[in-house]
Amino acid sequence: MIRRGFQEAARLSRHRALLGGPHILPRLNPTSAFGSSTDSLVSRFCPEKTDLKDYALPNASWCPDMLSLYQEFLEKTKADGWIKLPSFKSNREHIQGLKLPFGLAATSDKSDWRIFTRCIQEEGQGYEFAHGGSLVAMMDETFSKTAYLAGEGLFTLSLSIRFKNLIPVGSLAVLNVDVDKIEDQKLYMSCIAQSRDQKTVYAKSSGVFLQLQLEQE
Amino acid sequence: MIRRGFQEAARLSRHRALLGGPHILPRLNPTSAFGSSTDSLVSRFCPEKTDLKDYALPNASWCPDMLSLYQEFLEKTKADGWIKLPSFKSNREHIQGLKLPFGLAATSDKSDWRIFTRCIQEEGQGYEFAHGGSLVAMMDETFSKTAYLAGEGLFTLSLSIRFKNLIPVGSLAVLNVDVDKIEDQKLYMSCIAQSRDQKTVYAKSSGVFLQLQLEQE
Repeated sequence: MIRRGFQEAARLSRHRALLGGPHILPRLNPTSAFGSSTDSLVSRFCPEKTDLKDYALPNASWCPDMLSLYQEFLEKTKADGWIKLPSFKSNREHIQGLKLPFGLAATSDKSDWRIFTRCIQEEGQGYEFAHGGSLVAMMDETFSKTAYLAGEGLFTLSLSIRFKNLIPVGSLAVLNVDVDKIEDQKLYMSCIAQSRDQKTVYAKSSGVFLQLQLEQE
Repeated sequence: MIRRGFQEAARLSRHRALLGGPHILPRLNPTSAFGSSTDSLVSRFCPEKTDLKDYALPNASWCPDMLSLYQEFLEKTKADGWIKLPSFKSNREHIQGLKLPFGLAATSDKSDWRIFTRCIQEEGQGYEFAHGGSLVAMMDETFSKTAYLAGEGLFTLSLSIRFKNLIPVGSLAVLNVDVDKIEDQKLYMSCIAQSRDQKTVYAKSSGVFLQLQLEQE
């Protein structure tokens, strides 16, 4: 979900083990360096009317704690100006009608695009124990959506992560992303993954994304 | 593949986009801080006689360049003391009969364990364009096998990655891992992902792993 008018975003993941939740950001202008507001980027990235399946909805595999957190965020959309973002199978579906730079769109003839963290199609299937890379991949995915919606950040330039505690399979982790600054066409962000009660920090990370405008096809 | 007698390892991945290749390491003792030699760790991690499927074998989805590199490494196993490592579906299969610390083994009743980078079962299906997280996950996987075989490094403590160039879908990337040092029960490693001809660097990363001995069950 994203709070309207602020330069930050995160999404509720369908993955049981990892759930993204945002909070408010300081020190940021409501428009990106390229002049697109968060609202216009959200409406471009997450069209309200679409036939595409939204994966950011509860399914039978969600644990009670995850469902409860989802409801908590959903309540915010009624009063606090928060927006629920859909999450399609692939980022390509989110940017339909837009042209990727560097001719990337033509590098493969495969059509079944999925975001990397959505490789497993069965609901509730997730990660093996103690695989740090899977958490980094989830953080990069959360960073990348945030970066795009906060200011057209499109490509990861660098990522760092420090692991603090193991996340048991089947447990709930909340990812909070902050956009720390936007400077020289770069977005600097930090992320903390922790338990819902914030008593256990699973990992902290930071990332830098390059801003690139997408053009209409 | 791994070079016998040296404290380093990597594996040939079945993923078309990313292929791990090792090279020789300086400044390391042939035994880990815990006294297990690479040879004994390899034989424990990669049993020669097993019914488990080895995924580190060519399949129809491999591009000619990847097949050629595989053959090049395979040739080394005949003369240079290199060993071909198998790669099972899950790291749990590699450490069968060993007890995980912290009671991790009992955290889920699911039995279809797969390593995160092996979520997609269809041969040749791989990554979406430009997803930095997928490369970090692959590097972490390569780091983790290297860390274990080089000195019982078991858990990722930290990871950093800098992205230099995009990896087009379907192209070949070679991952070289160095174990830089082992100190205070920690393994410090670096990894470079580049094109086979080494002319294009895709990303550079570093990682720290915690050493933990696994006990017989």
